[in-house]
Amino acid sequence: MKPRVRTAVLVSGGGTNLQAIIDKSAEGAIPSAEIVVVISDREGVYALERADKAGIPSEVVPFKETGRGEFERRLAAALESRGVEMIVLAGFMRILSADFTAHYPNRILNIHPSLIPSFCGEGFYGLKVHKAALDYGVKVTGATVHFVNEIPDGGRIIMQKAVYIDDNDTPETLQKRVMREAEWVIYPEAIEKAASEIRRSK
Amino acid sequence: MKPRVRTAVLVSGGGTNLQAIIDKSAEGAIPSAEIVVVISDREGVYALERADKAGIPSEVVPFKETGRGEFERRLAAALESRGVEMIVLAGFMRILSADFTAHYPNRILNIHPSLIPSFCGEGFYGLKVHKAALDYGVKVTGATVHFVNEIPDGGRIIMQKAVYIDDNDTPETLQKRVMREAEWVIYPEAIEKAASEIRRSK
Repeated sequence: MKPRVRTAVLVSGGGTNLQAIIDKSAEGAIPSAEIVVVISDREGVYALERADKAGIPSEVVPFKETGRGEFERRLAAALESRGVEMIVLAGFMRILSADFTAHYPNRILNIHPSLIPSFCGEGFYGLKVHKAALDYGVKVTGATVHFVNEIPDGGRIIMQKAVYIDDNDTPETLQKRVMREAEWVIYPEAIEKAASEIRRSK
Repeated sequence: MKPRVRTAVLVSGGGTNLQAIIDKSAEGAIPSAEIVVVISDREGVYALERADKAGIPSEVVPFKETGRGEFERRLAAALESRGVEMIVLAGFMRILSADFTAHYPNRILNIHPSLIPSFCGEGFYGLKVHKAALDYGVKVTGATVHFVNEIPDGGRIIMQKAVYIDDNDTPETLQKRVMREAEWVIYPEAIEKAASEIRRSK
């Protein structure tokens, strides 16, 4: 049996998607990937505690203090030293350069809280995505897991799940429902799907 | 009880959505609307036979021979003579002018075979919509019922329903599934929803 795909999860905040991935992994639902490190671009975020509790090594590679160039050099070094083959962005709030993403073709995964190509691209993140969907008046939204390339939210789609909007939804209630009904469901599944492909090709 | 909303269905072809509406109406699922006429812009289309079989009056208002100005004048006359209050476009392949749509604000319904705002607007009709969705690589598509205004596929959304794409879907198989799983389901429901609002406001 080929070894599991060595996977890093990049975070910037609370890490609710990280937790969903940790939980599903503990249940044995992500047999093709092993989370070998959680990396945050900020100190003190709760995602780092979640990693600790799950017994996963974590690291902080600061962004703000150094800027993107130095951040990416340090990030690449951290990933290489741990033999990381696949990168999962989970609430990671920095945009990676085209140079960086080109080093990991079809190896970086991201989740976006809409049905791409609706409400995505530059400027669409967090609550803004859900506000845009409600302002437009759509009745169905959802989440998308996709590979990351040089175009924001532009890489190949791996999985999508639909979420129906209620008449009295606010951006906040919608954000929570999209997380619970879509993001936490499809992200672990999509990670397994991508990892099993990488594993087969090793 | 206020009278049912006098409704015209406009068609150009086979009339599968018309049939779904006729069937649901016969089941009593569209109590707020009465289909008083089916109007086609072309002679000899099967939708006209479906109207006949259901005992619904039908008319042909030719487009090709006269052009849009004369077509819309004759259409408006036909609608007025029958006291039509709501217009349902069901596979009707002509674009109505801003002048015409302005006469029926929130009174003209259309169905589009995607989750608007994805894969809609000028040039997106029929199989082209499904080909665009497959080419983009989305995993979820669907159908949208919306009011018609001067912007193609730009009016307020009434209902949407999601359809999951299979790995081996072609534009043809996807078109059929979107019809069966989404269009024929939500169009009758959306017509009832819009008609009941019009009826309440009478």
